[in-house]
Amino acid sequence: MRTIYFKSNPKIIATGTIAGPKECSGVVGNFVDKALSDDTFGESTYEKAECKMLTFAARKAIENAALEESEIDFFISGDLLNQIISASFTARDFDFPFLGVYSACATMAESYALAALLVDGGYANRVVAATGSHFSSAERQYRYPLELGCTRPPQSQWTVTGAGGGVVAKAEHGAAITAATLGRVVDYGITDVNNMGAAMAPACADTILRHLQDTDKSARDFDLIVTGDLGVLGSRLLKDLLWEKGVDIQSNHIDCGEIVYNVIEDEFQGGSGAGCSAVVFNSYIMDKLRRGGLNRVLFVATGALLSTVSSGQGESIPCIAHAVAIENM
Amino acid sequence: MRTIYFKSNPKIIATGTIAGPKECSGVVGNFVDKALSDDTFGESTYEKAECKMLTFAARKAIENAALEESEIDFFISGDLLNQIISASFTARDFDFPFLGVYSACATMAESYALAALLVDGGYANRVVAATGSHFSSAERQYRYPLELGCTRPPQSQWTVTGAGGGVVAKAEHGAAITAATLGRVVDYGITDVNNMGAAMAPACADTILRHLQDTDKSARDFDLIVTGDLGVLGSRLLKDLLWEKGVDIQSNHIDCGEIVYNVIEDEFQGGSGAGCSAVVFNSYIMDKLRRGGLNRVLFVATGALLSTVSSGQGESIPCIAHAVAIENM
Repeated sequence: MRTIYFKSNPKIIATGTIAGPKECSGVVGNFVDKALSDDTFGESTYEKAECKMLTFAARKAIENAALEESEIDFFISGDLLNQIISASFTARDFDFPFLGVYSACATMAESYALAALLVDGGYANRVVAATGSHFSSAERQYRYPLELGCTRPPQSQWTVTGAGGGVVAKAEHGAAITAATLGRVVDYGITDVNNMGAAMAPACADTILRHLQDTDKSARDFDLIVTGDLGVLGSRLLKDLLWEKGVDIQSNHIDCGEIVYNVIEDEFQGGSGAGCSAVVFNSYIMDKLRRGGLNRVLFVATGALLSTVSSGQGESIPCIAHAVAIENM
Repeated sequence: MRTIYFKSNPKIIATGTIAGPKECSGVVGNFVDKALSDDTFGESTYEKAECKMLTFAARKAIENAALEESEIDFFISGDLLNQIISASFTARDFDFPFLGVYSACATMAESYALAALLVDGGYANRVVAATGSHFSSAERQYRYPLELGCTRPPQSQWTVTGAGGGVVAKAEHGAAITAATLGRVVDYGITDVNNMGAAMAPACADTILRHLQDTDKSARDFDLIVTGDLGVLGSRLLKDLLWEKGVDIQSNHIDCGEIVYNVIEDEFQGGSGAGCSAVVFNSYIMDKLRRGGLNRVLFVATGALLSTVSSGQGESIPCIAHAVAIENM
């Protein structure tokens, strides 16, 4: 058993999203609940800004669902910062239980899968799943101090400043989470920490292939296969890896990282970060699902499970991808 | 809904544990599957040693359950290292899907709760839940380089070097996970990162009180209430906090951190770390459950959700505690 089926088809009844100025000049600008004009969000540190965005997204999702906070049963979240502090500090503001998760940039899909599990199994009525990231807090934790002004290599991606989340609950109609394929850890030996797309593509291919095999579906059964943050290069690698296995996603694939920016200069391969798929999926894609422009979506968020310590000790980058199938009902 | 009830009573069918030399000179020495004579476990870094211990514990649990790895459906794990690399790198060795979680030293209880959820809901047949920690990797990540030889303050605890885990599955008899109360984040404003016990005690009290209230039980309904790693001081605070609410756990409470070491010198308040409750619960307590010395246990692992960044930015320490009720059947 690797793919989980949710018989009661729990729905994503509402979402909440927020993104920074750079992000909002791109495709998500017209779809987020709040477009920031200042990426510090009025806070004194980037970490506090990241946390405030995540809190905003979770609160907004609850508000958009026309619910009170007292009606929420669980909060599932994680983020890229060490010890997932954005999620923990967000959870501190809430009175409901907190389930901390971590799968790097695959966190949105893992959180939605667990939320669907809790609701489908009858263990909860309403669960909030959310995540986010911030370019500046990620840069200084994973790479270099911003003040150094390091040149970014062309294979790199730009961490999305933003947060997104949704409320999962039982409902008659809406975007239903019908199945989830939780990924295994795949590592092809990539050690270049700037080349996340290449590192994550094999894990993404593995999960997609497993999902199609388990559910006896073909890629064409989905209006869209939405991957997390492979970027331009990673997306090409994914298509190649799937093509080799006889699966063609050329015509119905988009990658959140690939589409999030109008690439002008430094973003190179596009966006990344837990906030990347969280913002794009919960704003742009969910809007299309709500309006019926899309009806069957496979959302596959991808994560690179490295740390600065593991990289420093010469380890390669283990990666993971979790898939959730979303169908309009 | 805060407490989750598992109607099918999934069982912890086997456990696997390993601990370092310092730990094995204490109570767990006679109960672990492997007692290390060398805390590097033959590895070149402490991080690699931590990962190897976690892999050992997971593998040993599967072996003790007389199962093949191909019969496992999911691996649930997390640890204290940044980006939970011990768990991720352990998962890389396995062919089954990985669910990364994080709740600091409360990870063992969160993992068991999720494992029970997957099995009880019929989403999985056999799930491995495991976690661990290493004194030396935790010290250099959270505190000071070991080489500095910093003096430890008397309110401090000693991170346990060890790992433990179990296999959760449906079975006729054995130690059943009957309910789980996932905690909310509680923060009483403690900022002393050396005083984890004081920081975590309120969260622990909150979860225990909620569990008793939700399940309409009294503390006396349990043979033993086993808390994670409050240490000596934290345990006293917990007892006081519960006493104020009319709950007396004086006669049937032990704390894994309090009992794990024969405190001689530097351990002060006792043990801590994700490995603390993972080792003590899965070896010593589970042995008592198997032999019938204990029949009803409330296992409440506690976690301090801080990071060096949040502490450095002047934040207090948000804490969490997750409880799982275990009953012999």
